[in-house]
Amino acid sequence: MGILEGNITGMEIHRVVVVGGGFAGLQAVRGLRDAPVEVTLVDRQNYTLFQPLVYQVATGALSPAEIAMPLRRIVRRQRNVRVVLGEVTGFDLERKEVLLQDLPNGDGPTSLGYDTLVVAAGSRYSYFGHEDWAAYAPELKSLAGALDIRNRILGAFEAAELEDDRDRRQSWLTFVVVGGGPTGVEMAGQIAEVARDALRDDFREIDTTTARVLLVEAGDRILATFPPSLSRKATRALEELGVTPLARHTVVDVAEESVAIQDPNGEVEHVPARTAIWAAGVNASPLASELAAAAGVEVDRAGRVPVGPDLTLAGHPDVHALGDMVSVQAPDGTAALLPGVAPVAMQQGRYAARAIRTRLDGGVPTAFHYVDKGNLATIGRSKAVADVKGLHVAGFPAWALWLLVHIVYLIGFQNRLLEVLRGETTYATRGRGARLIVDRAEPGVFSRI
Amino acid sequence: MGILEGNITGMEIHRVVVVGGGFAGLQAVRGLRDAPVEVTLVDRQNYTLFQPLVYQVATGALSPAEIAMPLRRIVRRQRNVRVVLGEVTGFDLERKEVLLQDLPNGDGPTSLGYDTLVVAAGSRYSYFGHEDWAAYAPELKSLAGALDIRNRILGAFEAAELEDDRDRRQSWLTFVVVGGGPTGVEMAGQIAEVARDALRDDFREIDTTTARVLLVEAGDRILATFPPSLSRKATRALEELGVTPLARHTVVDVAEESVAIQDPNGEVEHVPARTAIWAAGVNASPLASELAAAAGVEVDRAGRVPVGPDLTLAGHPDVHALGDMVSVQAPDGTAALLPGVAPVAMQQGRYAARAIRTRLDGGVPTAFHYVDKGNLATIGRSKAVADVKGLHVAGFPAWALWLLVHIVYLIGFQNRLLEVLRGETTYATRGRGARLIVDRAEPGVFSRI
Repeated sequence: MGILEGNITGMEIHRVVVVGGGFAGLQAVRGLRDAPVEVTLVDRQNYTLFQPLVYQVATGALSPAEIAMPLRRIVRRQRNVRVVLGEVTGFDLERKEVLLQDLPNGDGPTSLGYDTLVVAAGSRYSYFGHEDWAAYAPELKSLAGALDIRNRILGAFEAAELEDDRDRRQSWLTFVVVGGGPTGVEMAGQIAEVARDALRDDFREIDTTTARVLLVEAGDRILATFPPSLSRKATRALEELGVTPLARHTVVDVAEESVAIQDPNGEVEHVPARTAIWAAGVNASPLASELAAAAGVEVDRAGRVPVGPDLTLAGHPDVHALGDMVSVQAPDGTAALLPGVAPVAMQQGRYAARAIRTRLDGGVPTAFHYVDKGNLATIGRSKAVADVKGLHVAGFPAWALWLLVHIVYLIGFQNRLLEVLRGETTYATRGRGARLIVDRAEPGVFSRI
Repeated sequence: MGILEGNITGMEIHRVVVVGGGFAGLQAVRGLRDAPVEVTLVDRQNYTLFQPLVYQVATGALSPAEIAMPLRRIVRRQRNVRVVLGEVTGFDLERKEVLLQDLPNGDGPTSLGYDTLVVAAGSRYSYFGHEDWAAYAPELKSLAGALDIRNRILGAFEAAELEDDRDRRQSWLTFVVVGGGPTGVEMAGQIAEVARDALRDDFREIDTTTARVLLVEAGDRILATFPPSLSRKATRALEELGVTPLARHTVVDVAEESVAIQDPNGEVEHVPARTAIWAAGVNASPLASELAAAAGVEVDRAGRVPVGPDLTLAGHPDVHALGDMVSVQAPDGTAALLPGVAPVAMQQGRYAARAIRTRLDGGVPTAFHYVDKGNLATIGRSKAVADVKGLHVAGFPAWALWLLVHIVYLIGFQNRLLEVLRGETTYATRGRGARLIVDRAEPGVFSRI
């Protein structure tokens, strides 16, 4: 009997299939640790990603293995979980099956039966219908995208070093970051820092501190999910680092040698720039549409599937959807405005596990309630902005807070790894932290699945 | 004035071009630190690789950034050095020019003038004229090759986990390592260990400890550069780990689903195996042939260019060639048998720098003399063999020695990085150790250049 049929134990046991090993999916899996269920975790990647730090891979500050962790390593001791690598293409909610293809052994398409389904496939950046821009402006969300961006940034400085022509040289030293959310802000700040600090002594012909970094945001201000006062502070901090924040500016074309930017008056400037980075237009994973189609509901403008207060699809109490790919509807039909951040996803994952256990016990789950613990973004080495329970902090204290929170997160994240390492020999290669299958052939189609 | 013309200083100063940033090239560069010369280091990669540990990247034990280091970072404080990224395609020894293409800014082909040339382009594995095997058996020498192999090894276990058919499952769990030199031996040992140890609890359907690892060596014994007694000990140690060493066996075909292996009696077996790894047939970089053609001399069977006792080409005292790509001729015309290991390359690099300085002072360099400090190979976590000045060590003491030597080497290697980090804030991301441009599009054409 193959792994895709029947149960691990061979007995009749409630089968939970979790699609997506990101923040939400992994919390759902963990929450079912002691439940009388068998969990199958499906992902197209063999690792989970600590997404808030992906931009640090793009600047070369961190290695992929430092922000990614093999799924099998995370769940190895949870014996009621099995991991299946493969790409989910759709759902048959009548037959209770997940449709799969691209299995590692070359098999497929095939399907995987469930009793309860949890879909947490995350989001990705969209190019607003201009998918051809992706060739010149890679997305900053997946590991593959981050590695691509890293090569381009470093390659641009190498190219500038060889360039005689002043204008061409400047176009290699101009970086356009599209999207003024936390990822775009952090990326722009770090490129400026790298140019002004880490790379300064490495070149002989160019002055890397003359690099220009433009941060383009279509909305009224950068960091729109933060209070306006913190957006203003972040803008000033970016300017001090040498970044040019351009709020209410829109990217209208991306080509190999330039980016066309429209200002608030409608004037379009073709900025000569050889490196562009995309961190805009958050859209739900295409699996949200697949799930909506299977359930006969509509996705919203951002491609998110609507779920009820218990995070299940209307008419399908056995189908949970979580994280960036859903829009949570209040009982009165209005959509709750939850930010697309890790804490929301993690709380929803834990909630889904509790709800599944409650239903198995014959109960009815209470509604999901998000506990907002605040919002943080960093701008360079020692500046950040934070909004914690209405308390607005900026500058060094916010940066120290950012660092603390991320260290705590990362420690939680690597907990399992530390457990494994503990009691081992001093031969430090045993943890196999770098056990990641990074497919660079087709970067960034999905973020977590 | 562009970087490819004239001097950094603009003054008439002796120009040394070093092709290849491996062990030999970097030692030559460093040795010219205080010399009245201007050095241009040319490499097609922006990093140098600690090649003895590349196999550990292939098993996921180490990250690329742990065994590679940006060239610019290494030479940043040596102000008489500039770095040019680009692919060297040949040499014009009459006009004293290095021919270049694939520059980061898209320019080229172009050329780079020199007064003294140092070529240290290393070696690569050859497929004995069967370049089509490379698709199924990636080479274990470059970072790109190692990452490819890592993905294949991990993907094979994932595929086996999904496979119902017993024979197909076993073919996913069979690994063939081609080449019984230190790299092949270390790789085979570590695959066996990973299967028996690190991955054991990660899968539900397969027993990873049933994985087969075949180590195929065409010669009489594995580790042919070691004394026979140590080869025997290494063979036993590999067998204990679960590796099947096959000396006097030849790979006669590599296909997607099998490897054809000929035994000493001429019988050919088609072993069902989905993963093959190539670490055989060391050949000089194609630049050795280019250099030989430019000088009007012949390369030897392994593609190496002959150099005299002072490591220069016959009739060209201004052209040094070093490392794996050369065959050193004694004054009587016989070739010295120097192993293709890091100590030889490093000693030759230091020698070349001394010889250049001696000639600039009007002197005549004495002949190069290699000081053999011994030979080490590791087989799994706590076994190794060592041959140090005729003293043969095996088992745990040899392994401890191996670990010690590599830690010392790595510390030397990362010295510059540590220097940079010292005195910095605790914000550990400043070293930018991961600043590597890894081009996976065209893996393994050259090893160091």
